[in-house]
Amino acid sequence: MATGASSFPALPALAGVSIGIASAGIKTPGRNDLVLFEFVEGTTMAGVFTKNAFCAAPVSVAKQHLATTQPRYWLINTGNANAGTGDAGLQAARDCVAAVADHAQLDSSSVLPFSTGVIGESLPVDKITAAIPQAFEQLGADQWQQAGWGILTTDTRPKGATRSIDIAGQRVTINGISKGSGMICPNMATMLAFVATDAAIEQNTLQRLLADTTERSFNRITVDSDTSTNDACMLAATGTSSAITTPEDERLFSDALQEVMLELAQAIIRDGEGATKFITVDVREAANTAEALKVAYSIAHSPLVKTALYASDANWGRLLMAVGKADIDDLDVNQVSIALNGVTIARNGARAEEYSEEAGSAAVASEDIEIVVQLARGTERERVWTSDLSHEYVSINADYRS
Amino acid sequence: MATGASSFPALPALAGVSIGIASAGIKTPGRNDLVLFEFVEGTTMAGVFTKNAFCAAPVSVAKQHLATTQPRYWLINTGNANAGTGDAGLQAARDCVAAVADHAQLDSSSVLPFSTGVIGESLPVDKITAAIPQAFEQLGADQWQQAGWGILTTDTRPKGATRSIDIAGQRVTINGISKGSGMICPNMATMLAFVATDAAIEQNTLQRLLADTTERSFNRITVDSDTSTNDACMLAATGTSSAITTPEDERLFSDALQEVMLELAQAIIRDGEGATKFITVDVREAANTAEALKVAYSIAHSPLVKTALYASDANWGRLLMAVGKADIDDLDVNQVSIALNGVTIARNGARAEEYSEEAGSAAVASEDIEIVVQLARGTERERVWTSDLSHEYVSINADYRS
Repeated sequence: MATGASSFPALPALAGVSIGIASAGIKTPGRNDLVLFEFVEGTTMAGVFTKNAFCAAPVSVAKQHLATTQPRYWLINTGNANAGTGDAGLQAARDCVAAVADHAQLDSSSVLPFSTGVIGESLPVDKITAAIPQAFEQLGADQWQQAGWGILTTDTRPKGATRSIDIAGQRVTINGISKGSGMICPNMATMLAFVATDAAIEQNTLQRLLADTTERSFNRITVDSDTSTNDACMLAATGTSSAITTPEDERLFSDALQEVMLELAQAIIRDGEGATKFITVDVREAANTAEALKVAYSIAHSPLVKTALYASDANWGRLLMAVGKADIDDLDVNQVSIALNGVTIARNGARAEEYSEEAGSAAVASEDIEIVVQLARGTERERVWTSDLSHEYVSINADYRS
Repeated sequence: MATGASSFPALPALAGVSIGIASAGIKTPGRNDLVLFEFVEGTTMAGVFTKNAFCAAPVSVAKQHLATTQPRYWLINTGNANAGTGDAGLQAARDCVAAVADHAQLDSSSVLPFSTGVIGESLPVDKITAAIPQAFEQLGADQWQQAGWGILTTDTRPKGATRSIDIAGQRVTINGISKGSGMICPNMATMLAFVATDAAIEQNTLQRLLADTTERSFNRITVDSDTSTNDACMLAATGTSSAITTPEDERLFSDALQEVMLELAQAIIRDGEGATKFITVDVREAANTAEALKVAYSIAHSPLVKTALYASDANWGRLLMAVGKADIDDLDVNQVSIALNGVTIARNGARAEEYSEEAGSAAVASEDIEIVVQLARGTERERVWTSDLSHEYVSINADYRS
């Protein structure tokens, strides 16, 4: 199941970025399961990675390489997460990147590995290294959509976004693809996002821009509250178009990047496991960001709220419950108001006088649902995005195990 | 669905406690939905209540009355939670207790109200007050099991526990009943529990004993991580048997009370919404209690772990993921080991060499599953209990308006 339109936007070629696709037969014979990104020399690169203490072997290697050099290749495989594989897994990841580095006649640190798929099984290094020449042969500029398909596991659709802006008289473009739906392999959810731009951006700035925009995009979505071992979001700047130098340039670029990141993040929610609803939780009038997020996630993680929305039930009692359990100091519940798709259902901590079940039911019948909570404590506002909890979610995660 | 045996234990009559049942027709005509407990004069009483900021009207009134006097009556209704009902809800709760107090010719503060059921609908005060005389007429000593039935909502079975010990040559008994199967993540608490003893215990001691035992029983269970608006756990001591005075008496009594509380708490998990598994999460070798609980709840709240266990899938990857996301400072994942019903599945952060899928599948085929996590960081140990996440859970919560 998934919500919203499934079309993949037209991503233009980006100067300095080539993409090669190959079939290594990692899990499913014949499937394009290997994607190679090649970046022109001089490209700067930034990355953010899972905070799960059990981070996968490729995440460890990618972080290490990114800290020591400006890499030139991303090697992404699906079908095997290379997680929970110990020292052997680290060696497997290193063997794969060494094969790419040898082919490119570069040092191994120039290659970053990414894996997604089954956890706890040995990465089939031989199959991957055998397919790497094919990936190099296939390198081309117009393969963003194929890359979008190539990184999927159990997602039902590829996810892409693009924005272009004008900087110093030149067109600057940002392209991105992402994957993840909550269940990727028999074992756990994995989110990956790969974004590139032709702008020239100094590495420290790039890392800061990625961290800032990740915080307000991928770090604001939840399908099931579970944090994967393989999450990574990468941003590369090839420098083949204008340089981002002035504060005004940076603001323009940052806004466009934020739009790309948010579109990619929301696409993951729309394709969330068993998703039948796309839910925006918008918490306003908080005293600070932390408490706004506490309330937002208390709602977005609540199985009772999520099952009610699955049933198109305007169950405002469960919403009050979720706000109340968020552990906000001195919350005056008599000041809290809640609206569902513009219909005020609770005001001053109790059911709104004008509220009717009919109006509530009409509001939640929609596929897209916006929950607005007003805390009357300050001026901070935070939004998070989530999906509902359906029978299909349980089926996917209970029944899918080889 | 529910797990384990469904028999209700034989709860003996307790001197000083009478119980009356009535049918007020609050939600379902003909159902026994009103339970009245009457305590002999001189009874001491203690209570712990939900920490949800949106605490229900009866919780507010009960806390207020308990703080001002030693109450003599508990009035419990199902079918309506009287939560999210604002000032009108408070008045409704007061009107109900006033009706009991008038009948008993006592002050209103002598009566504590408890409600459970649908949130956000007006309490039908007239129906309740009309049934109160019937509850008084029915007062009797041997009605613990009927009371167990009378306080249920979506539960599939009544829950009771009893223990007897000898103190100063007299038999001292502790009886308790509880209810709850969803919106269960007690921080005190997500349920209702009513416990009484014929011991004589000074009120401050009683409150301390209740708080201590609640912490290691109802505050260690979770069905769905949601904390209800109406939770309360009450303990009354009628003083008709021996007094608890010496430290040795107190230890004996406390141990028996702990057993009653834990049995009642675990009965809620066994009857958790859609439960097909009874899961013990046992975290050992933690540096402190807080981190042991963080890891335990990270596992117990994980939808991916709970759906895997529903499928009898020894999905150790999801368990590693849940440990890893628990946000423990400097966790050395290479020291972590995990066992399922005695079968070591992960050792030193990776799959145990001797582990086989067959052994794992055999281990989780059981209805009762014990997950033991060893963190190798210290000597603290904490256990929490939870249920799995099944299709039935989604059906119940998508179809039932709580």
